[in-house]
Amino acid sequence: MSPIPHNIIQSQVSQALEEDIGSGDVTASLIPHNNQSTAHLICREEAILCGQDWFNEVFKQLDKSVKLNWHVQDGERLSNEQCICTISGHSQTILTGERTAMNFLQTLSGTASITQTYVAQLKQSSENQIKLLDTRKTIPGFREAQKYAVRCGGGYNHRHGLFDGILIKENHIMAAGSITNAVKSARMNSSHTLKIEVEIETLDELQEALTARADILLLDNMDNEMLQQAVELNQQFKQHQAKLEVSGDITIARLSKLALINIDYISTGAITKNINATDFSLRFEHFNLENLNSCPQIN
Amino acid sequence: MSPIPHNIIQSQVSQALEEDIGSGDVTASLIPHNNQSTAHLICREEAILCGQDWFNEVFKQLDKSVKLNWHVQDGERLSNEQCICTISGHSQTILTGERTAMNFLQTLSGTASITQTYVAQLKQSSENQIKLLDTRKTIPGFREAQKYAVRCGGGYNHRHGLFDGILIKENHIMAAGSITNAVKSARMNSSHTLKIEVEIETLDELQEALTARADILLLDNMDNEMLQQAVELNQQFKQHQAKLEVSGDITIARLSKLALINIDYISTGAITKNINATDFSLRFEHFNLENLNSCPQIN
Amino acid sequence: MSPIPHNIIQSQVSQALEEDIGSGDVTASLIPHNNQSTAHLICREEAILCGQDWFNEVFKQLDKSVKLNWHVQDGERLSNEQCICTISGHSQTILTGERTAMNFLQTLSGTASITQTYVAQLKQSSENQIKLLDTRKTIPGFREAQKYAVRCGGGYNHRHGLFDGILIKENHIMAAGSITNAVKSARMNSSHTLKIEVEIETLDELQEALTARADILLLDNMDNEMLQQAVELNQQFKQHQAKLEVSGDITIARLSKLALINIDYISTGAITKNINATDFSLRFEHFNLENLNSCPQIN
Amino acid sequence: MSPIPHNIIQSQVSQALEEDIGSGDVTASLIPHNNQSTAHLICREEAILCGQDWFNEVFKQLDKSVKLNWHVQDGERLSNEQCICTISGHSQTILTGERTAMNFLQTLSGTASITQTYVAQLKQSSENQIKLLDTRKTIPGFREAQKYAVRCGGGYNHRHGLFDGILIKENHIMAAGSITNAVKSARMNSSHTLKIEVEIETLDELQEALTARADILLLDNMDNEMLQQAVELNQQFKQHQAKLEVSGDITIARLSKLALINIDYISTGAITKNINATDFSLRFEHFNLENLNSCPQIN
Amino acid sequence: MSPIPHNIIQSQVSQALEEDIGSGDVTASLIPHNNQSTAHLICREEAILCGQDWFNEVFKQLDKSVKLNWHVQDGERLSNEQCICTISGHSQTILTGERTAMNFLQTLSGTASITQTYVAQLKQSSENQIKLLDTRKTIPGFREAQKYAVRCGGGYNHRHGLFDGILIKENHIMAAGSITNAVKSARMNSSHTLKIEVEIETLDELQEALTARADILLLDNMDNEMLQQAVELNQQFKQHQAKLEVSGDITIARLSKLALINIDYISTGAITKNINATDFSLRFEHFNLENLNSCPQIN
Amino acid sequence: MSPIPHNIIQSQVSQALEEDIGSGDVTASLIPHNNQSTAHLICREEAILCGQDWFNEVFKQLDKSVKLNWHVQDGERLSNEQCICTISGHSQTILTGERTAMNFLQTLSGTASITQTYVAQLKQSSENQIKLLDTRKTIPGFREAQKYAVRCGGGYNHRHGLFDGILIKENHIMAAGSITNAVKSARMNSSHTLKIEVEIETLDELQEALTARADILLLDNMDNEMLQQAVELNQQFKQHQAKLEVSGDITIARLSKLALINIDYISTGAITKNINATDFSLRFEHFNLENLNSCPQIN
Repeated sequence: MSPIPHNIIQSQVSQALEEDIGSGDVTASLIPHNNQSTAHLICREEAILCGQDWFNEVFKQLDKSVKLNWHVQDGERLSNEQCICTISGHSQTILTGERTAMNFLQTLSGTASITQTYVAQLKQSSENQIKLLDTRKTIPGFREAQKYAVRCGGGYNHRHGLFDGILIKENHIMAAGSITNAVKSARMNSSHTLKIEVEIETLDELQEALTARADILLLDNMDNEMLQQAVELNQQFKQHQAKLEVSGDITIARLSKLALINIDYISTGAITKNINATDFSLRFEHFNLENLNSCPQIN
Repeated sequence: MSPIPHNIIQSQVSQALEEDIGSGDVTASLIPHNNQSTAHLICREEAILCGQDWFNEVFKQLDKSVKLNWHVQDGERLSNEQCICTISGHSQTILTGERTAMNFLQTLSGTASITQTYVAQLKQSSENQIKLLDTRKTIPGFREAQKYAVRCGGGYNHRHGLFDGILIKENHIMAAGSITNAVKSARMNSSHTLKIEVEIETLDELQEALTARADILLLDNMDNEMLQQAVELNQQFKQHQAKLEVSGDITIARLSKLALINIDYISTGAITKNINATDFSLRFEHFNLENLNSCPQIN
Repeated sequence: MSPIPHNIIQSQVSQALEEDIGSGDVTASLIPHNNQSTAHLICREEAILCGQDWFNEVFKQLDKSVKLNWHVQDGERLSNEQCICTISGHSQTILTGERTAMNFLQTLSGTASITQTYVAQLKQSSENQIKLLDTRKTIPGFREAQKYAVRCGGGYNHRHGLFDGILIKENHIMAAGSITNAVKSARMNSSHTLKIEVEIETLDELQEALTARADILLLDNMDNEMLQQAVELNQQFKQHQAKLEVSGDITIARLSKLALINIDYISTGAITKNINATDFSLRFEHFNLENLNSCPQIN
Repeated sequence: MSPIPHNIIQSQVSQALEEDIGSGDVTASLIPHNNQSTAHLICREEAILCGQDWFNEVFKQLDKSVKLNWHVQDGERLSNEQCICTISGHSQTILTGERTAMNFLQTLSGTASITQTYVAQLKQSSENQIKLLDTRKTIPGFREAQKYAVRCGGGYNHRHGLFDGILIKENHIMAAGSITNAVKSARMNSSHTLKIEVEIETLDELQEALTARADILLLDNMDNEMLQQAVELNQQFKQHQAKLEVSGDITIARLSKLALINIDYISTGAITKNINATDFSLRFEHFNLENLNSCPQIN
Repeated sequence: MSPIPHNIIQSQVSQALEEDIGSGDVTASLIPHNNQSTAHLICREEAILCGQDWFNEVFKQLDKSVKLNWHVQDGERLSNEQCICTISGHSQTILTGERTAMNFLQTLSGTASITQTYVAQLKQSSENQIKLLDTRKTIPGFREAQKYAVRCGGGYNHRHGLFDGILIKENHIMAAGSITNAVKSARMNSSHTLKIEVEIETLDELQEALTARADILLLDNMDNEMLQQAVELNQQFKQHQAKLEVSGDITIARLSKLALINIDYISTGAITKNINATDFSLRFEHFNLENLNSCPQIN
Repeated sequence: MSPIPHNIIQSQVSQALEEDIGSGDVTASLIPHNNQSTAHLICREEAILCGQDWFNEVFKQLDKSVKLNWHVQDGERLSNEQCICTISGHSQTILTGERTAMNFLQTLSGTASITQTYVAQLKQSSENQIKLLDTRKTIPGFREAQKYAVRCGGGYNHRHGLFDGILIKENHIMAAGSITNAVKSARMNSSHTLKIEVEIETLDELQEALTARADILLLDNMDNEMLQQAVELNQQFKQHQAKLEVSGDITIARLSKLALINIDYISTGAITKNINATDFSLRFEHFNLENLNSCPQIN
């Protein structure tokens, strides 16, 4: 089985190919039909690899005879100029699929890499096991792929959508009348398999949410001092301790301070709403299939 | 008609909604069915607006009774704290659609805004009418939307895919035997409505491509001095002048220098392969429909 | 917004219409194009109504000019011979759509009605607020519709699929080595918004699961006496009480006994894997639009 | 080729998997990726098997390496505790696909089994070759699958939809003015490959329909005595004998009486609008591939 | 309701628009967004109109504000230079949709017109009510549209596909062993709503098929004399008369002879496998909405 | 890779099969499941072959075990009674797929053959290398297939749709104010990879278009004499020569004259808007697999 349901990968790849190829690759006719190539996929910077299944699927949908031999796996660290995959088959197919395959790889590896930067900073600063979480701030249509990239980078996934997590925000509270009412109503009407998370901005709201026995508190836009107080109030609450998640103004710089506070999760939209594509390059060796499965010497 | 074919917008929105809502919004039940809200869409930084049609389509697919009143149009400049749209209708719908609608807007406005930064730098540095072009390095499945965002930011589109432009690259030349053969073969076999562009890296290649009467030359990874020589060689070529496009190592910093060289186009993947989401916020006024269509006072 | 995401309803209805109409209704040509009818939808037995949105969508997809006027709402109790909806419009449309619309209504009302029978029996037997839950044993492709029908009948939904609830069964435990390991692993790797449920068959397993702090215990195939012991062990466990769900051999007859045990949930596949279609009838008044919106006299 | 067009099976299975798996099986991560299992599919009651192609397709869509070895074929009679299939492959795949595969099998075998009960009762009561027919009262979206199940149970299919059979009902007759006009109009306008069936409720209508040379008469809601008269009138009609189909109030109990009347077909919605799922169970043997293709001893 | 199921029309139009517009109409930007036009659809030769619903759907999918005012209806006879529809709305939309809309109209009117030529020839030659039938020799993906065009031209439809008619051909007979066996088997296993048609090439086969009580005989590739004998043998057969359908070498020239033979149907692939597009033209009146709904003077 | 993007072929074939098979082939049950056949595909007239990939895809989608052995390739010339392919596999599959597969082949070979007739006439009349072009006047939904057929017949493709070529027609010129404005605006706003083509009807317009430096001139509805003048004016224009395309009233008869004029392209809708299906026949050898891969003796 795929890391994410395979029908999602198939559908994303087929749409990307349609978008790029449309009525046909008008330059491909310059390449003789039976011309074969070997090409080496090179990473041009330090990064975390993510997107193999999408890259493979691009060539599978174009031409099942193309062979891909990966030298590293998703989630592994790549160094500059590292050869990560050797591709062999019809030159036409490789050239036609190249851009689409690379677009998946560079986008997803970009997300995995920035996630890993956050996670490494967090681990370096403390031995607290604070988990870095993503959000629903994603590129439309690409969420499950990006959430997989977050996992490849060492992060964890918050809810995948509105369907698999209850998050009571300011407007839900206003509509329900109070945090107490909102939590009670959620517990009554929602699936018993889902925890109840409440977004709070003040310590009074924290007290009310704890009393209502919310399972998770999302501490939004609090400064470090206020977060420390929130942690203490939660610990002092006898009957029930909630999990604490922190969001708002999460920068790499601030992580070393946050790492010292006894919270459970930090969530940030920045790792998925922004993209910094990883730089990859595909280098061809023409008419020579002997080196298949081995990387070229790089000096 | 839409700025891009409407079926593309419909399909992207319906996929994004399925991805986010799946089997249902489990928190929405906290909001009474008949509760109505007015909400104001605020931009939180300077930016170029892009994505109205996607934003509108999100709410149209969820609930046709929601009303949106835009105060600016795609392509216009936004200032920090500017109210750009007033939304009115069922609170449930607005809350359920909020994230998906915002994800489109923040992604596309991000692309329009960075494009505008490049274009402004280019215009400021020279009166040459050099056009900034995008590439095929895009987020998979999102290309047409991103290319529209580039236009909103004042950029121009290179080919949309492999189907609407001939770009002869190094591998095509190797397969054809020479630039001369490649251009000849392309002219013979391709649609007469398409120009022929050749990627070149040396001045010798430029001479050969001019002699073969390529319509456009993509000068890849040349430094400014070499570009200047290329421009002169092209001008001296009697029978035929090609259009000149420059790519490789295009940074904001370098644009002021490039602007002084007499080239026609600069193309860069950075404006579409990287995303820096624009910051928007949706602010609710509950139970009060009177202010519909006007923005709140902001002090 | 619809009770379930509208795209699911649209898609189910369009497939059902394609299945029934295919290349066309070959008997419809007997009805003149401009012939108009009023028809009354009658329930032929006591039941709980479910399926209005699907019924409406059938006619909307065929011909937007057909008008439907409902006299009761989903979730309400119907009596024998009650008129529940008046339909008016082109006779051709009403006859062509009749069977498909009825198939949705009879299937979903059947599920709502049997659910209501279980729930009523449970409420009558005790004041315990035990919730009746459905399962994933559903008609393929029809799950969200059936889960909505369960809610209409007064039941509650267990997880909608494998994506929104963790249920550790015997085979997961075998693979993980022990209940302790399985719960620990699930807590480490799964979304923090999801509770952890463990299926257990013995009191020893119950002790281990409580110690591992599973959130919910699924007590499978235990007799009433053993269930009573399980409840007591859970209450005596100091640090943590789990929610208790009972499954296996759930019959109407047994509900009165189960209602006296202090459990939280009873789940049963019977309400969704079996269907007992409710009996509805559509009665036409031809060529007479005067009685629109009012039901005929029934004596 | 499949028993029904394979695209229908593919589409139903892919929808059922999407419905169940959605963004991913959150419990599957407890099972190591490379863990292999053998599992035995056991029938827990007497039944007629139906649904192999759907069951196979579920695993094929998830993971082509899973092997299924069936010991009986669709349409065969199953006994309680009979092992009917041995499945071998990745434990993750088998657990993820189990419920969806079982849902198809239990639903379709339920329809085949109830059909077989009707057919057996009919055959036992008489040597008349009366065929048991289904109707268009089916689960929406599942009709072709159910009609195949009816065939597996020994029944026959009435028309598959509005497209492959002319059935003139009361409302068509009213619109056409008379049975005579309706039959004439149908003969004029419909495909010459389709027979013309008329629903009648009285013996006068039968006379008129015979005179109009309807090919099939659907005798609806007639008691046994009236049916006997209808048979005799039909036999006495010189120029033309119609085929006689009986519907309305068809119970198992009444079949022994109906079997003695010289009719051609009995049609009933009960076998497809109601579902009584057959009880199957999947039993795992972990880490042991040796018994593949053979069933375990059951004592 | 549409003349054929509306989902077929929607899907054909949306595919045709995607095929033609793809990533966008690159010439449309020459037309100002708010420019309005009136255009007149003119027929350039004598023809039968067919395809209004497809023509309308093209503009509806592009822009609901375009208005179409038809002056004739599908199935009516058109003369050279006749104005048949006035279109008014955004000039961009009309120009973008023009070709796709015209392609539907010219193709379908072509089929209707050639059909009408056959039918007129048949009617002129005799008062026999021989029906002209189409076949399954159609443009792939366009069959239902073409069969509708055949009806507009005065022809009748043979079966729509393999699903709604039994046609026993030479290979079926060989597999079944004999015509007798084949008819018997078909009667046993097929829906009772379908007639049984047998393709025969000799008079011996005709005798066998009549004895087996086939409902329809397809007399393939017989000359007129042999057809006359076939008609007589059928009339002399006491117990049963079959309907007689003639196919093979059906030309306009031969129709006058065939019309004198007492057969029931003539079927020919020529009217749907060949296309002779009708010539239409769209003439614009710019910037002038006053003449909407009236045709221009043509002198 | 396929001659045209494979997803287009897959989708066209699956739609054609659904259209023909629908709920199932009701005559197929006459053929035993395990019956195997060899069949020979024969061409019944002189023609150019086109459509192999579609023909293959039909059988692949039905049953992967069917084997096809082609004796000629797309684009090759066929003679009457030539055996072009041998098919071997389940008789049921071959019979069920026959019509759909043949419909693709006969339609596309028809287009290739008529194109070849035009091209041959052009070549025979002159040594000018005038290319024959198709247009956007195609069967809706079938354009890419038809454009491939044109290439098989020796023709060339004009733009594939509105997305890959700029063609400024009369209405665009009216909206832009003049040819000069229209060309300028197109050059400003369109992709630099696309040439600019202008449709002109007079020599004055030709002068204006040349002055505006249009890349291609579409000389519409000019007689041969005026065409000759247009060629001369173009040659005399110092700064710039445009490519010349001729359309309007293009008949086989006129080609020999046109071939003598020094134009570049001739475009005609007739080769794709009209269809003259090529006659193919499928001949079965039953129960005999020995002759697989060899054609039968034809005398």
